[in-house]
Amino acid sequence: MTVRTFKLTVAYDGTEFFGWQRQGSRRTVQAELESAIEQATGHRPRTLASSRTDAGVHALGQCVGVRVATRLNAEVLLRALNAILPQDIAVREVVETGADFHPLRNVSSKLYRYLIFDGSVREVFARRYCWHFRQGPLDVEAMQEAAKSLVGTHDFRSFSTSGSPRKSTIRTVSQLSVCRVGLAPPAVFGPTTNRATFGPGAKFDESSNVGPGRDWIVFEAAADGFLYNMVRNLVGTLVEVGRGVHPPTWTSDVLDARDRRRAGPTAPPQGLFLVNVRLSQ
Amino acid sequence: MTVRTFKLTVAYDGTEFFGWQRQGSRRTVQAELESAIEQATGHRPRTLASSRTDAGVHALGQCVGVRVATRLNAEVLLRALNAILPQDIAVREVVETGADFHPLRNVSSKLYRYLIFDGSVREVFARRYCWHFRQGPLDVEAMQEAAKSLVGTHDFRSFSTSGSPRKSTIRTVSQLSVCRVGLAPPAVFGPTTNRATFGPGAKFDESSNVGPGRDWIVFEAAADGFLYNMVRNLVGTLVEVGRGVHPPTWTSDVLDARDRRRAGPTAPPQGLFLVNVRLSQ
Repeated sequence: MTVRTFKLTVAYDGTEFFGWQRQGSRRTVQAELESAIEQATGHRPRTLASSRTDAGVHALGQCVGVRVATRLNAEVLLRALNAILPQDIAVREVVETGADFHPLRNVSSKLYRYLIFDGSVREVFARRYCWHFRQGPLDVEAMQEAAKSLVGTHDFRSFSTSGSPRKSTIRTVSQLSVCRVGLAPPAVFGPTTNRATFGPGAKFDESSNVGPGRDWIVFEAAADGFLYNMVRNLVGTLVEVGRGVHPPTWTSDVLDARDRRRAGPTAPPQGLFLVNVRLSQ
Repeated sequence: MTVRTFKLTVAYDGTEFFGWQRQGSRRTVQAELESAIEQATGHRPRTLASSRTDAGVHALGQCVGVRVATRLNAEVLLRALNAILPQDIAVREVVETGADFHPLRNVSSKLYRYLIFDGSVREVFARRYCWHFRQGPLDVEAMQEAAKSLVGTHDFRSFSTSGSPRKSTIRTVSQLSVCRVGLAPPAVFGPTTNRATFGPGAKFDESSNVGPGRDWIVFEAAADGFLYNMVRNLVGTLVEVGRGVHPPTWTSDVLDARDRRRAGPTAPPQGLFLVNVRLSQ
């Protein structure tokens, strides 16, 4: 039987996984996905992902390369996998590709998103999908200022958790944005005292939320690659600025130090989403 | 010590509860809330909710009346309860009220929302908060047409699951809307292939979702009161129209029949949200 190569776009809720990578008998996304592919095709596949997301980290568009002996085409494989996979994984797209496809080597950029909720009363529907920062509102303008010096090509050693030897700690961050929004998950589920307006073209009325109504901070980071824990370390460092412990100029000093101990703590995993992976060619 | 009366606005994720009402040793919202109030005040409270939501049903703004002997004021009680309560319940507001406050008798209207996702690939982050209708897209225009005859003062016996004797099955439905939207939970968590634009005043780009992008249907129902399972039976009946089993005029016949067996099936609980309760006075 022909061995085919597929590119899968995969979404998962990372809450109940020990991350992407297979680890013995632990529940991981790779183990679930490979088991589903084996059930669908009758053959054991080899899979490789663009990003080895950690325990608790989510994906909207993880990119997975699959090599497996099968007669199934991409469309049939998509439907078969979604029928077999558990509810917290979904395959969003399957494309058959050339045998030379490599989800790590072919990456041109990755986009991550990180959500912080800094309102006082927790949002029960988003509790698995954000960092609830309880010590009062963060200063977004200061974090925006602090983020500027991190954009560009730099040695990001200060933002890499050790234990992951890499050839180089130089990366190019093309985007690092920080925005306060009211239009986050709970706003969609709606206000408790007033009514949001639904309907074609309707926008949610931010003022109708209980409380201040703009309690969400969205970080987005795009780069040609990220070091281990780099996004969570960048967010944790910016939060130190946002809470007033350090001035916005501090991040530039941290970068220059090339020393993990100089940066802020690692932000918790449940706020992090791998949004998409852009491939070259 | 003075016995005080408070009105609480409570949100909960119903997934892991056997509904609102205390039932022996089962995990219910009332049992968790009463236990938290007892821990905070040192006294056993009496609580009563405007709506006895079923197992799996969510609330954004359940209205709860509490009578308890305490020296704590509303603000202190709010903070104490949120510190004690489990992560899937949050008290959004506490107001001290007169001893005559009654969360059932004082209701002037309730608003419920029901979410259906009818896209082909499941949305992993919303799986606990919607009915994933897998048999293809529903005809929203037909459901909108069918909903019209249900608005107003009618005998809703056909939409009441039996086993709940009530004095009267006549209710006044002031609103029953059906809308298709793209701006639902997963859209907020974002597209996998394109980027949503965040930032002050930014609106999410509906076209940037994977797939058709408008795979969400939002039902909203407001009435002076609802019979047992009434919202879920209304939704289940409208879905029969939306999938083409019956014409839009059918709902009027169902209403006139005053017979539960004539209506559609009960929609599953996880799509239902008690949005808010409006009180008289």
